[in-house]
Amino acid sequence: MKHKIENNLIKIQSDIINAFESLESENGSIISLDEWKREEGGGGKTFVIENGSFFDKCAVNFSSIKGNELPKTALANNLNKEVNYGYKAMGVSVISHPKNPNVPTSHMNVRLFGILDKNSEIDEWWIGGGYDLTPFIVFEDDIKEWHRNAKACLDGINKDYYPCFSDNCNNYFKIPHRNERRGVGGIFFDNVTDLSLENSVKMLESVANAYLGSYMEIANKRKNIKFSDTEKDFQLIRRGRYVEFNLIYDRGTLFGLQSNGRIESILASLPNNTKWQYKKTKEYIRLEKELLSTINKDWNV
Amino acid sequence: MKHKIENNLIKIQSDIINAFESLESENGSIISLDEWKREEGGGGKTFVIENGSFFDKCAVNFSSIKGNELPKTALANNLNKEVNYGYKAMGVSVISHPKNPNVPTSHMNVRLFGILDKNSEIDEWWIGGGYDLTPFIVFEDDIKEWHRNAKACLDGINKDYYPCFSDNCNNYFKIPHRNERRGVGGIFFDNVTDLSLENSVKMLESVANAYLGSYMEIANKRKNIKFSDTEKDFQLIRRGRYVEFNLIYDRGTLFGLQSNGRIESILASLPNNTKWQYKKTKEYIRLEKELLSTINKDWNV
Repeated sequence: MKHKIENNLIKIQSDIINAFESLESENGSIISLDEWKREEGGGGKTFVIENGSFFDKCAVNFSSIKGNELPKTALANNLNKEVNYGYKAMGVSVISHPKNPNVPTSHMNVRLFGILDKNSEIDEWWIGGGYDLTPFIVFEDDIKEWHRNAKACLDGINKDYYPCFSDNCNNYFKIPHRNERRGVGGIFFDNVTDLSLENSVKMLESVANAYLGSYMEIANKRKNIKFSDTEKDFQLIRRGRYVEFNLIYDRGTLFGLQSNGRIESILASLPNNTKWQYKKTKEYIRLEKELLSTINKDWNV
Repeated sequence: MKHKIENNLIKIQSDIINAFESLESENGSIISLDEWKREEGGGGKTFVIENGSFFDKCAVNFSSIKGNELPKTALANNLNKEVNYGYKAMGVSVISHPKNPNVPTSHMNVRLFGILDKNSEIDEWWIGGGYDLTPFIVFEDDIKEWHRNAKACLDGINKDYYPCFSDNCNNYFKIPHRNERRGVGGIFFDNVTDLSLENSVKMLESVANAYLGSYMEIANKRKNIKFSDTEKDFQLIRRGRYVEFNLIYDRGTLFGLQSNGRIESILASLPNNTKWQYKKTKEYIRLEKELLSTINKDWNV
């Protein structure tokens, strides 16, 4: 069953890789696909596009690691699990930093934790993940559609999920020191134990597919809109918020660092170019005002 | 006495501002000098140069804040202090991100914490601070001179200081998840309570002056060396390490966030342009190898 789950997750990764590659024109971008092994057990596959025609950078990571002691970030809310025969943590995580500030940055993650029994089979499990959207230039239609699709996806599994997971997302993707949200939300869930192991994996697949469908729709709709140098600069500065969130608050990143993960893969989520500018221009202030009024409110449908 | 100390710190700030401005040519750079007040008491003065001819960015911050409860980052080693009538935290911090990768990035901080008595006078105090150097392209002479000057400065106060503070610096400026040091060290001290209040302030002045002398010497020696696009790119990627350290580990940054400081001033230390690149070029690997062999060792004299 572990291998079946791994294969399902690898399929999720490869669908996203194919879709993302379809956004790139033939030449110029630097594409990396690296397989890696982890000393303590397990490994992964890291896919990165850099300096592309569509992506400044994107990373699509698969990893499946084995360990003996659960890092504290593996469980939310300070829960505790007894691990006698090791654990497995398997997942796919995606981050996209498109070149065009009319296309939002996005993040998606699906993961399954399993506590192993003495035969090294998954005995107890929980899933987590979700996806969220960080726009620069605002298109309200895209945001509404993003949430409608997320709701449609989750309603097919459990009608209670969307309202709860969408709230989670709003609460999790906050940057307290900036008094800002990171984006317009989406869904975020953790420690979900309601489903059979098989249905847990199916749910991860549904979430990943819903993300990919929604994001590709927005990408294709907005990718050819012209943008100014000022708008590009605005995007590069706002990307700094993403870095701040990921390095200070993100549990996925911390889990990677705590579980002695492959550092290049964990931090492949960071954008290739970012600015922290102290002096704000008038145009920046105008763009930021519009953006903040959009991201600092609930978009749940 | 509080006001005298504040004035001494403001003098430190203004000496550094004048020296840094002397490195800039007449036009083009964006220079900001903002005074700010903090709601809970106190305030500061933030000076920033951006897009200069010498500096991509530098920040020279003075702050003097008052509070009632010491943030836990105010004291190293989980020490505890009783605060009945409030505390003062006063300091100057400097970070320089020069344009030319032949000139290192530098950081300096001097600070004094005081526990107030019922008359709002400083009753108990400790000082902290130090300075350190983060080169991109290596000049061993500069590193040796940097340490010799630090030793000369501290030997004038207490012969035990340099060996101890230099070790502190090597131990503090580490990036565990990269298994790298941040730079070639310098000095770092905290919770120093050996000196009278007056001599504590004198020590902070000596440290700031030693830093400024050393850094200006290096800056003037290296600022006109030509550099390639590859070397510039190398610098921008290595700056990412600085961001990682500051956001994940730096106690000064965390103190700022925990004490509800002015966020623009706290994060003025972050570079205006930074890259996280996944795929390493051959040239990058060569430059990094040389740099890592330099920074991952002790330079204490």
